[in-house]
Amino acid sequence: MTGREFFRTRTVAEALAGFRPARRTPAETVPLADALHRVPVAPVRAPAALPGFARSTVDGFAVRAADTYGASEGLPSYLDLAGAVLMGAAPGVEVGPGRCVAMPTGGVLPDGADAVVMVEFTAETMPGTIEVTRPVAPGAGLVRADEDVAAGADLVPAGRPLRAPDLGLLAAAGVVDLAVHARPRVVIISTGDEVVAPSTATLRPGQVRDATASALAGLVRDAGGEPVYAGIVPDDPGALEAVLREVLPGADLVVVSAGSSVGARDETAGAVAALGEIWCHGLAVKPGKPTLLAECAGVPVVGLPGNPLSALVVFRLVGVPLVGRLAGADAPPPEPTVRARLARDVPSAAGRLDVVQVTVRDGVAEPVFGPSALLSVLTRADGCVVVGEPATGLDAGAEVEVTLYR
Amino acid sequence: MTGREFFRTRTVAEALAGFRPARRTPAETVPLADALHRVPVAPVRAPAALPGFARSTVDGFAVRAADTYGASEGLPSYLDLAGAVLMGAAPGVEVGPGRCVAMPTGGVLPDGADAVVMVEFTAETMPGTIEVTRPVAPGAGLVRADEDVAAGADLVPAGRPLRAPDLGLLAAAGVVDLAVHARPRVVIISTGDEVVAPSTATLRPGQVRDATASALAGLVRDAGGEPVYAGIVPDDPGALEAVLREVLPGADLVVVSAGSSVGARDETAGAVAALGEIWCHGLAVKPGKPTLLAECAGVPVVGLPGNPLSALVVFRLVGVPLVGRLAGADAPPPEPTVRARLARDVPSAAGRLDVVQVTVRDGVAEPVFGPSALLSVLTRADGCVVVGEPATGLDAGAEVEVTLYR
Repeated sequence: MTGREFFRTRTVAEALAGFRPARRTPAETVPLADALHRVPVAPVRAPAALPGFARSTVDGFAVRAADTYGASEGLPSYLDLAGAVLMGAAPGVEVGPGRCVAMPTGGVLPDGADAVVMVEFTAETMPGTIEVTRPVAPGAGLVRADEDVAAGADLVPAGRPLRAPDLGLLAAAGVVDLAVHARPRVVIISTGDEVVAPSTATLRPGQVRDATASALAGLVRDAGGEPVYAGIVPDDPGALEAVLREVLPGADLVVVSAGSSVGARDETAGAVAALGEIWCHGLAVKPGKPTLLAECAGVPVVGLPGNPLSALVVFRLVGVPLVGRLAGADAPPPEPTVRARLARDVPSAAGRLDVVQVTVRDGVAEPVFGPSALLSVLTRADGCVVVGEPATGLDAGAEVEVTLYR
Repeated sequence: MTGREFFRTRTVAEALAGFRPARRTPAETVPLADALHRVPVAPVRAPAALPGFARSTVDGFAVRAADTYGASEGLPSYLDLAGAVLMGAAPGVEVGPGRCVAMPTGGVLPDGADAVVMVEFTAETMPGTIEVTRPVAPGAGLVRADEDVAAGADLVPAGRPLRAPDLGLLAAAGVVDLAVHARPRVVIISTGDEVVAPSTATLRPGQVRDATASALAGLVRDAGGEPVYAGIVPDDPGALEAVLREVLPGADLVVVSAGSSVGARDETAGAVAALGEIWCHGLAVKPGKPTLLAECAGVPVVGLPGNPLSALVVFRLVGVPLVGRLAGADAPPPEPTVRARLARDVPSAAGRLDVVQVTVRDGVAEPVFGPSALLSVLTRADGCVVVGEPATGLDAGAEVEVTLYR
């Protein structure tokens, strides 16, 4: 049992605003099929205009719009059918005055035409003559050659993870590989004399299997990082410092899942202080107060509380956005949320963020209470309610926003 | 230009409720590290109780609670310190009446003790004697041996994709591999005489690179499926039928990204009808009406509209939940949403779902209008607003829920 350490406590808002290491992962070139959710290092520009040719958006007839002015059911325009455009081929024919050309959706607009009349407003009353019963304006029924993207314009921006439709636009532009930020390598160090590997078949009295590392690895993957297990380190300040020295050169972020005793927490702080600067030790959040944020040799280091539940709550709050930033994202990804009414009072202290695990059924959020030593509190929950720093609790019946787990 | 086909149109709600193929992917055993977001084929039960021993949740002293009754600052209880429990080891000592044992957080409760007093409410005034200044109830400061999970109880349920904390609980229980549903193999067939591979450096007039397949593959991955490209098939009914016959035996879901002309749509329907049963052809949604849902040899087949934007809107609505079901999920995953006010009127027709792409800035949703032939409409959007089937449009200023893309 060691003495109390000096806690430099910060709020979560201060941590999110202030603990923003400049580090970004380097660029790597990946094929388009592997680029989903990766962040381009620079905007990707269109090598040429898209679609690249004026293109029909309807099945119908390419016309000169002026030839359809005044056309109606009672007084149609009659146009000579000069030919047909085939999909994927150059038009073999022009559209002169008083003429039209049959068009499939997606076909190339022939020279001379400036609009496409939908087939619904036409009839071929005599072979070779098309009756048009509605006027069209120039530009109707088509997209311009550069209407999707102009040559040299941005296909996708930097700083935003690529989404599925982005991959489509890049494919359309012929961009089949691109430079993106590498996945952040997040080194996970577990500590504690009592902690053994999950594969340990039989536990000795007092031993527990490492739950936090597997759960953290899942959160790291969800955030776009690459988890790297550095193993389990005994409660020995020298041992932790040695492992930190070893892993820092290959890490973009180091996460130490601390032993849960006061002594073990002191040891993490001591080892980290020997290698870098502690930004805060103590976060105004429940659960999760004994959190340490530091930077060692340009690598952010997060020291998590010993309880798995507390560790995961804190990593969701501050670790996940950090992984996204390291990977080049300007903003954290949107999270699923749902509105619900609280089933019972939730106490909280002013000046502290409270994260309350809840189940949600039929619009009612029921808090899942239990010691933070229990992992099942988190696996039973559908999501969490965050009670802000100024609030002193929420009343039963209050409308709350639940962040849903996925 | 072929004639009009018979459209058997359904609403999206009907499709989600009624088009529910019984198919599920088979079980496969994966290591825990690869189980994130996979769905267990059966509930996974705890081989033994967790944590497996009564465990201290605080730093302090294991006591018999009765020995602390009435203790106060003014009149403390004095207990003999009989020893200390070390992390990860069996206690070497019992707690007899009038005695206590020093405990780290997470240590094994010694025999004889039924509570742990926090160190904050104690003092070692004389060597070997601990002063307790607050009473504790039996069970205080500890978790029971089966408080997290009882032996034989469910660690995780079937039917719900595994989340990061689930991996932690499974690790704690020593479950290092488990049986989950295989990722659905989603075969993507592109069609169209004008469509060429994204890697095509120079396009001939009228050619376009295949955008939809890459974007669909991204949505399939997000939904937990494994995209399999079957290549680009020309607009020829025999060719599509031959490819369908070839891919069906190895597919859990087939997606045909149709040519956009009426003729091409007819061809998809014809080829599918030759091999199975069409459930609907025509979905009351804009964009996305020319959608086909079918089942061929026990494999669901989705025929998508030719426009990439329409195809992706429809696949998000009906394809993504389908992939989840094939993978064993009971419910679709929660999606990120945000409330916003519409910047302008949005027209809609009653009886049809309208999916409107929007950007969101400072709580205002601005519709991104543009022909559905444009992919950039979707890449510029932050999300979409769904205007329900009964509604005939939404007014500027209306509060809407925006589904955000990620």
